[in-house]
Amino acid sequence: MKNFDYNNPTRLVFGKGTAENIGKYIAGYGDRKVLLLYGKGSIFANGTYDKVTRSLRENGIDFLELGGVKPNPVISKVREAVGLMRREKVDAIVPVGGGSVFDTAKACAAGYFHDGDPWDLYEGKAKVTKALPIYGVLTISATGSEMNHNSVIMNEEEKKKWGLGSRAFYPRLSIVDPSIQATLPRNQTVNGACDTLAHVFEAYFGGTPSTRMQDELSEGIMRTTMDSVRILLDDPSDYDARAELAWAATLALNGLNGLGRAGDWASHGIEHSLSAFTDIAHGEGLAIVFPAWMKYVYREDPEKFARFGEKVLGIEKASAEEMALDAIEALKVFLRSIGAPVTLRERGFTEDMLLPMAENAVMKGSLGSLKKLGKEDVLEILKIAF
Amino acid sequence: MKNFDYNNPTRLVFGKGTAENIGKYIAGYGDRKVLLLYGKGSIFANGTYDKVTRSLRENGIDFLELGGVKPNPVISKVREAVGLMRREKVDAIVPVGGGSVFDTAKACAAGYFHDGDPWDLYEGKAKVTKALPIYGVLTISATGSEMNHNSVIMNEEEKKKWGLGSRAFYPRLSIVDPSIQATLPRNQTVNGACDTLAHVFEAYFGGTPSTRMQDELSEGIMRTTMDSVRILLDDPSDYDARAELAWAATLALNGLNGLGRAGDWASHGIEHSLSAFTDIAHGEGLAIVFPAWMKYVYREDPEKFARFGEKVLGIEKASAEEMALDAIEALKVFLRSIGAPVTLRERGFTEDMLLPMAENAVMKGSLGSLKKLGKEDVLEILKIAF
Repeated sequence: MKNFDYNNPTRLVFGKGTAENIGKYIAGYGDRKVLLLYGKGSIFANGTYDKVTRSLRENGIDFLELGGVKPNPVISKVREAVGLMRREKVDAIVPVGGGSVFDTAKACAAGYFHDGDPWDLYEGKAKVTKALPIYGVLTISATGSEMNHNSVIMNEEEKKKWGLGSRAFYPRLSIVDPSIQATLPRNQTVNGACDTLAHVFEAYFGGTPSTRMQDELSEGIMRTTMDSVRILLDDPSDYDARAELAWAATLALNGLNGLGRAGDWASHGIEHSLSAFTDIAHGEGLAIVFPAWMKYVYREDPEKFARFGEKVLGIEKASAEEMALDAIEALKVFLRSIGAPVTLRERGFTEDMLLPMAENAVMKGSLGSLKKLGKEDVLEILKIAF
Repeated sequence: MKNFDYNNPTRLVFGKGTAENIGKYIAGYGDRKVLLLYGKGSIFANGTYDKVTRSLRENGIDFLELGGVKPNPVISKVREAVGLMRREKVDAIVPVGGGSVFDTAKACAAGYFHDGDPWDLYEGKAKVTKALPIYGVLTISATGSEMNHNSVIMNEEEKKKWGLGSRAFYPRLSIVDPSIQATLPRNQTVNGACDTLAHVFEAYFGGTPSTRMQDELSEGIMRTTMDSVRILLDDPSDYDARAELAWAATLALNGLNGLGRAGDWASHGIEHSLSAFTDIAHGEGLAIVFPAWMKYVYREDPEKFARFGEKVLGIEKASAEEMALDAIEALKVFLRSIGAPVTLRERGFTEDMLLPMAENAVMKGSLGSLKKLGKEDVLEILKIAF
């Protein structure tokens, strides 16, 4: 196990009916004026907008609002929000939505204090020094952004999708109310589960020796995620399965699961290039990329892929090589069974896009740690995925 | 799953060679004068005292010291420490030791600001309002005190051993350096593992429905603990097993594992009465009490005990009743195999002590949640344990 230094300051309020208390919490921390940030309006349909705004009013929190955050969040929206927040001098930002809204809120919270274009922070031209408090209400469990220090933003003109981590990005408080997710479209539940599994994979297959405790946690998250999504596809309103899936998604990327190991993160790097070129959902892209990545790299650590097969997918004992290959096939079978795509072709990618995407993926340098991947490696993986 | 509200502010620095950085961290937070608190002197034998004091000096941290904290920490030591801390006006307290030293440090940190006897806080006659910062170096993994808000202190004159939880009790920073534990006496490693298992049991058997994700985490902690202690009994210097056991012990009681469920905690209540009457180690007392408690209560939720048997102890499928009983026997076999006691008799308790201990255990009211236990119930459990 590698040494680690862990401190996650986010307060997580979890459970049925918790979203309607957001105003009480914000008032408790002494903030009085906030920007309410959201996406395309599902929060109007499912009643969350009403609950949140009522709670803000009842607790004397003054608010302005901005909607229209896209599933692949863009820097232009961050610029728009920061301008508004400065003119109105808000105390805090309140994302109500999924990971894209949280990631945008983080960019805005830091951009508020950055004297220049917020994209500078993601390009590494400037450092995050400070951020406004973030009080969030999560409506889709997937990215883990509600309890971590990561933000991924896309520069749509430059076709760049960069991630940034900063201690200032931890939300002060996040509310995860699984009952809100009962009305999610089927494919969003599936994409969230794929994203959760992908986060666990990135840490799990990172190639660090002796991470028994974390492997146990990872395998528990994977089994819970897979069983819960199966239940939800039959009955989207099953609260217990929603709660298990939501909690698994938060645990998959709140930092804990990656402690003491290197992590790989090549598949996320590759997926980001997919969504820089198309509007594919992040979870779909990961469902396509991961099995292909596994096929390309499993020989670096066949025992770990065999363990994954045994503990998570019920693969029978055989040689590590055979078990690893069986596990990758079983994962694809599972992904298809929940309606996730497993090839680029079925999501409309064409062969001529593979090389530009491979070039885009390694624009900042090679990817991964289990196996270092250059442009040629990524191209091979994209061909397998095609 | 029950609703929950989680925020653990402790910064955990984990790994080989981390203890020698304690002074750097304290200086980083701006504190300049501390009380160094420790137990009976094993920190001199294993070199930790030298590492810690060198680091304090090199970082310009002024310190005074107080040793002699007992394995079952007592309020008289808290009073002595608080007197010293007030006379010397320290900024913070630095426990270097196991759970008893951490628990004492928490009592002192809060006692420093309480105008009266620190025991008032544990008796519930006064509330913890504030505490000095705590920067700890853990030398025995067992109680989880390094990353939680609990403290258990004994009033030796009144034969009372009370636990207290307070948000102010979270250490600001705890260093867990598993390499320090390589020289622990065999029985202390075993007691630590028993304590860890007991913490997981208390949450796991709490009787709350649909806690799949937490059950997975619990089972992972149990399997990791059991396998790691087996490895360490063969080779106490195996760093990887030390690290796994240490990390499992922290995770067993840093709050995470109990989220969304009621928890039971009757066995801890009963054990506290054992150590109010004798000098038995906490881990030993729990090893004795838990199987007896299980035998007395398993009928309240035989399926959960059967699941425990299947997932943790490899018990073969049968009726839930049979699997539950097999699991309890298998747990006893495991405890014996690592040299833990499983009866009161073998630790010198006599039959006439059972009734007074049962009375002591329920002094503050009934125990448990899976099954509410009054004096007669506790007496039955003690008879089974005898």
